[in-house]
Amino acid sequence: MDKIATLAVVGVGLIGGSFAAAVRRAGLAGRILGVGRHVDTLRRAQTLGLIDGVATLEEAAAQSDLILLAVPVEQTAACLGRMAPHLRDSALVTDAGSTKAGVVEAARMVLQGRVGQFVPGHPIAGSHESGPEAARADLYDGRRVLITPIPENRPDDVARLQAIWEACGARVDCLDAGRHDALLASVSHFPHWLAMVYINQILGTDDAQARFDMAGTGFRDFTRIAAASPEMWRDISLQNAPALLDEIRSWQAAFDVAAQALEQRDGEALLALFERASLARQQWGTQVETKQ
Amino acid sequence: MDKIATLAVVGVGLIGGSFAAAVRRAGLAGRILGVGRHVDTLRRAQTLGLIDGVATLEEAAAQSDLILLAVPVEQTAACLGRMAPHLRDSALVTDAGSTKAGVVEAARMVLQGRVGQFVPGHPIAGSHESGPEAARADLYDGRRVLITPIPENRPDDVARLQAIWEACGARVDCLDAGRHDALLASVSHFPHWLAMVYINQILGTDDAQARFDMAGTGFRDFTRIAAASPEMWRDISLQNAPALLDEIRSWQAAFDVAAQALEQRDGEALLALFERASLARQQWGTQVETKQ
Repeated sequence: MDKIATLAVVGVGLIGGSFAAAVRRAGLAGRILGVGRHVDTLRRAQTLGLIDGVATLEEAAAQSDLILLAVPVEQTAACLGRMAPHLRDSALVTDAGSTKAGVVEAARMVLQGRVGQFVPGHPIAGSHESGPEAARADLYDGRRVLITPIPENRPDDVARLQAIWEACGARVDCLDAGRHDALLASVSHFPHWLAMVYINQILGTDDAQARFDMAGTGFRDFTRIAAASPEMWRDISLQNAPALLDEIRSWQAAFDVAAQALEQRDGEALLALFERASLARQQWGTQVETKQ
Repeated sequence: MDKIATLAVVGVGLIGGSFAAAVRRAGLAGRILGVGRHVDTLRRAQTLGLIDGVATLEEAAAQSDLILLAVPVEQTAACLGRMAPHLRDSALVTDAGSTKAGVVEAARMVLQGRVGQFVPGHPIAGSHESGPEAARADLYDGRRVLITPIPENRPDDVARLQAIWEACGARVDCLDAGRHDALLASVSHFPHWLAMVYINQILGTDDAQARFDMAGTGFRDFTRIAAASPEMWRDISLQNAPALLDEIRSWQAAFDVAAQALEQRDGEALLALFERASLARQQWGTQVETKQ
C-alpha cells in the first residue's frame, strides 16, 4: 500500500492519537501533523511521539493527503468549513463521529462540490480514559470500524480508507449512514441513555446515598457508561434524536410487558423473559470472544 | 473468638463454598459438613477441601453449631422445615438469600418457637462463575454483608454472626429486612430487570442480529447481568415484587422526564441530566475504590 505522505489528525486524544500511532505502527506514516484547540494537548502528543508537528486547520488542509477529524460531532461542520478553501484536490477527509447522518448533512452543506472527498467513518472503540496519554497503537486491533460512504465518494477512496483502517488492525464494514445511526442508537446510545436515567432515578429519591452505599459489582458494570462525558452524550442525543426516540418507543412496549408479568406475579412469563435475555446475552458473549 | 465446632453449609457452590473456605482461613473451623441435593457437587467440594464430610439436612441440624443456607430463596422454607425438629438448642442458623422479608416470613412459619435461632443474612458478593470450583477463601474480603435481625434473635447471636463474617473479611451492616429489600430492589434487582428488558427489546426487533453485531464494550458491561440465572431472577422478582414495583413506578417518572427533554430537543435539560448522572457515578466509583 502507498504511504500517506502527510497525515493530519484533528483532535489528538484517545481516538485521534491512537489512529496516528496505529498508522505509524503499520509503516504507513510519512509525516503526521496534529491539529487542535489546546496547545498543551498538542505538545503532549508530540512529546509522546504521536505527531511530528503541529498545524492549524488551514495549514493541515493545504498540506495533507489524509485528514482524520476526531472531534465532537457538533464541531465537524466548523472544522470542515475552515478546511474547505484549502483542501488539496487529492486529499481524503474522514471522521470518527458516533453519529453519521448529521455529519453527512453538515459535510454537504460546507464542502458542497468537494463533499465527495469526505468519506465518513466511525471506529467503535473507546475507553473510560481520554487524552493523548490514553492513545495506543493497538486500540483498533480486532475492533470494528464502520464506513458510511455517500454517493459522491469515489470507490477508490472508500477502498483506500478501508485498507488503511485494516492496516491499523480494525475489521471494516460499509453501510448506509441512516442504518448506522439506527443500529448505534440501539446498542450504544440507548444503553447510555438508560444508565443515565437510572442514576437520575436514584438521585431523585430521598435516600439516594443509602442506596449507593449498598451497590455492588452488578451496579458497577451496569452504570459504568453513565460516567461518560455529558457534553458528548448531549450532542449524540441531539444528533441522533429520531433514532433514539424510536428506541424509546420500542423500549416502552418491552418494559410494559415485563412490568405486567410482575404485577400479575406471573412466574412463567417472568421466567421466559429472563431465559430469553440470559440465553441471548450468553450467545452474544460467545460470538464476541470468538471474533477477538 | 470461639471456634465453630461443627459448621454445616447447605449448598456448596460459590457462596456457600467460599464461606466454608473463608471460615477455615480464619482458623474458626472445627469440622465442616456439606449438604446438598447433588452428590456429585458435594464430592467435588470435598475433593477441593471445602468440606470435611457430607450430611443430610437432618444430620446437619442434629450435629451443627452454625448452619449457613446458601440455597435459592424459594428453597429456604423447605430446608428450615426439615431441619427444625432436629436443631440443637444452641445452634445458630443463617442464610445468604438476596431477599429478606420473604425469608423471614418463611422462617417464622416453619421454625415457629425456634425462629429466634435464625439470624437472616445476605453477603453482597457474586461472580459470573458458580459451583464449588468458583469458591474462594477471599471472596468476602472487603465485601459488604447485610444482617437483618428479627426481634426474636438474641443480641449475642447477632453479634457472633457479625464477628464470624468479619473474620471472613467482610464489612457487616445490620438493618431491617424491609429496608434491606427496598435498597436491594433499587441497586441490584432493578438493574437486572432493566438489562433483561433491554435484551428482550432488541430480540423483539426484526434486525436483532444486525444490532448485536454492532455492540461494543459499553453494551458488554451494561448487559453483563442479563446473563444471570433466569430461575434465580424469577424467584427474586417474585419474592421482592412490591419493592420492585415501587422502582418500576419511580423509574417511569425519571424516564419520561428524559424522553420529554429529547422530544423537545432541549439541549440544556439533556446536559443537566447527563451531568448529574456522570458526576454521581464518578463519585460512587471513587467511594468504592477508597473503601476497597
